[in-house]
Amino acid sequence: MKAFPSLERLTACLCKLPGIGRRSAGRIAMKLVSQRDGLLKELLAALKEAGERLGSCSTCGGITPQAENPCALCRDATREGSILCVVEDPADILSIEAAGSYRGRYHVLPGKISPMQGEGLAQLGLEALRRRIEAEGVREVVLALNSDVESEATASFLHEQLLESKVRLTRPALGLPVGSGVAYTDAVTLARAMRSRQQCESPETERRA
Amino acid sequence: MKAFPSLERLTACLCKLPGIGRRSAGRIAMKLVSQRDGLLKELLAALKEAGERLGSCSTCGGITPQAENPCALCRDATREGSILCVVEDPADILSIEAAGSYRGRYHVLPGKISPMQGEGLAQLGLEALRRRIEAEGVREVVLALNSDVESEATASFLHEQLLESKVRLTRPALGLPVGSGVAYTDAVTLARAMRSRQQCESPETERRA
Repeated sequence: MKAFPSLERLTACLCKLPGIGRRSAGRIAMKLVSQRDGLLKELLAALKEAGERLGSCSTCGGITPQAENPCALCRDATREGSILCVVEDPADILSIEAAGSYRGRYHVLPGKISPMQGEGLAQLGLEALRRRIEAEGVREVVLALNSDVESEATASFLHEQLLESKVRLTRPALGLPVGSGVAYTDAVTLARAMRSRQQCESPETERRA
Repeated sequence: MKAFPSLERLTACLCKLPGIGRRSAGRIAMKLVSQRDGLLKELLAALKEAGERLGSCSTCGGITPQAENPCALCRDATREGSILCVVEDPADILSIEAAGSYRGRYHVLPGKISPMQGEGLAQLGLEALRRRIEAEGVREVVLALNSDVESEATASFLHEQLLESKVRLTRPALGLPVGSGVAYTDAVTLARAMRSRQQCESPETERRA
C-alpha cells in the first residue's frame, strides 16, 4: 500500500513541533485526517486566527495582538524602565511573567550565536539592544538565556559587547530547582549551587518576600 | 499580563491531539506563533492540503485520496475478498498493512459502543457491515479492535449480532509482544498468553513463514 503524499507532508511538518517525534507525528496526522470535518477544521481555524491576530511587538519583540503595538508590557508605565531582561524566545516572556517576580521590561533576541548554522554576531541585533539601552536609560540588563552551548556563547558575547556601556549585567541564579532533592540534581547544577551558596534568610524575611 | 485569546484557543485545540497534554500544547502554540511566517504557515498549508486531498473510501471507510474512491485496497483484485478485517480507526489499516501479513479487505466501524457518550448500537453501522458480508461473500470476519472497555463491548456486540450470519469470527491473537520479556508483561496479557499457548513450530516452519 502506497503512502499518501499529503499525509506524509503533514507528518513531516508536525515532526518539527517541539516534543513531537516521528511516531507521534504520524499518529496525530492520522487522527487529524480521519476527523477532517472536526479536529482538522478546528485546528485550521485556530492556526489561521492566531497567525492573523498575533504579531510581534516592534519594541521588545514579544508576542502581542496586531492591534496593540507596542505590547501591553512595553506600554505599562508602572513597570521599571531601568531594568531590561534579555530572552531568546517570546515564550520566555510569558514564563517569566507567570512567575510574577520581575517588574522590568523585556527584549527578545532575534537569534543566538550558532556557528554551525552560520548565524553570527550580526543577527543578534546587538545594535537594536544598544539603542534601547541608550534611549530608555537602562541601568541593568538581565541575561535570561537558556544554558545550552549556543545560549552560553550568546550570553558571553553580549557580556563582552556590553561591558563598555555602563549597564550592570546580571543573570538569573543557577541552583537547585525548588521542590527537588540534592540527590536528583545533576553534578554541574549542584556545583553551581554550592559555589553560589547564599546566606540563609530568616523565616520572617522569606515570608515577607 | 493577560493571555491572548487566540493563543489560548490554539492551545486548547492542540490539547485534543493524541499524546499532547496542556503543557506541551502551550509550548507548541508559542513556537507556532513565534514562527508565524515559517512553521505556522507551513502547518496551515499542510493541513489544508491534507483536508482537501484526502477523503474516506465509500466502501471500507479507510483513508484515500479523494480522486481514488473506492480506495486502492478495495480495488486491488489480488486481495482475498472472503476475509474482512473490522477496525475502529482508519489509522489501524495503515498499521496492519505495514505489518504486511494480512491480505484480505478492511471495514472501518463508524464508532464504538460508548454508553457514557450515548453512542449506542445504531451508530455502529451494523447494517452496512452485514450488507458487505452478504454482497462480497465474506466467510471470515477478523475483529481487530483495541482492548479497552468500549472496544471489548463493541467486539462482544458484533460477535452476538454476527453469530446468525454464517461467517467465521476471529480476532488477532493476544499474547506477549515480540521482543518483550515475561517479567515485563502485565498480568492480564500473561494470563491470556498462557491460556492460548501454542504448539512450538519447528525452526524450519518459522523461517518459511
